[in-house]
Amino acid sequence: MEKVNLDEAFASFDERWSPRLAGELNGQAVKLAKVEGEFVWHRHDDADELFLVRSGELRIELRDEPDVVLTAGEFVVVPRGVEHRPVAEKEAEILLFEPVGTRNTGNVEDERTRTDVERIG
Amino acid sequence: MEKVNLDEAFASFDERWSPRLAGELNGQAVKLAKVEGEFVWHRHDDADELFLVRSGELRIELRDEPDVVLTAGEFVVVPRGVEHRPVAEKEAEILLFEPVGTRNTGNVEDERTRTDVERIG
Repeated sequence: MEKVNLDEAFASFDERWSPRLAGELNGQAVKLAKVEGEFVWHRHDDADELFLVRSGELRIELRDEPDVVLTAGEFVVVPRGVEHRPVAEKEAEILLFEPVGTRNTGNVEDERTRTDVERIG
Repeated sequence: MEKVNLDEAFASFDERWSPRLAGELNGQAVKLAKVEGEFVWHRHDDADELFLVRSGELRIELRDEPDVVLTAGEFVVVPRGVEHRPVAEKEAEILLFEPVGTRNTGNVEDERTRTDVERIG
């Protein structure tokens, strides 16, 4: 049973928009990501997705609702089927919680699509 | 879509060993708990359980493995079926991630057993 230290885990990679796997439980994945700039609009038809900000600020843009702006220590759940676009004006570190196998760009194929998620450590 | 601020959420209650519901997704619950002292030895036969420490220190005692000591920003997953006892020498704030309906004392009935989990906010 190995614990994960979030500071060390985030320090272990630098790539933006490329989530790393930090843990798995009950068919769900804990992923860590460094993000900066505008991601692609997308949705996950079969997955609710939790975004928890560890450092920096993340804006989650939504089509039919006001944006949700998260700073360190704040989280939100984007329900399945809801189109969203994560945007970070500066580098932000975020923790994602979602079903194992969830693709970062959801229903969209993009140059930043990642099908393999590298495990941390 | 309501965001949760962890500082505000933890400030909203004071009871020890009584998790509050902060979010739900994919059949899983995000719970927040304030803990202090020794909890009861127990296991969850059908639920892996994630412990993430937000403040303070949490020791997770295990029967057949070394204890896992978590400080702020550290998490561990206790797999289903593994007997464990959370202990906090001083007050600690922790985030739990586990299936909806998971009972805090698992297979054990105790004065601290909580079947209802109050939602935050």
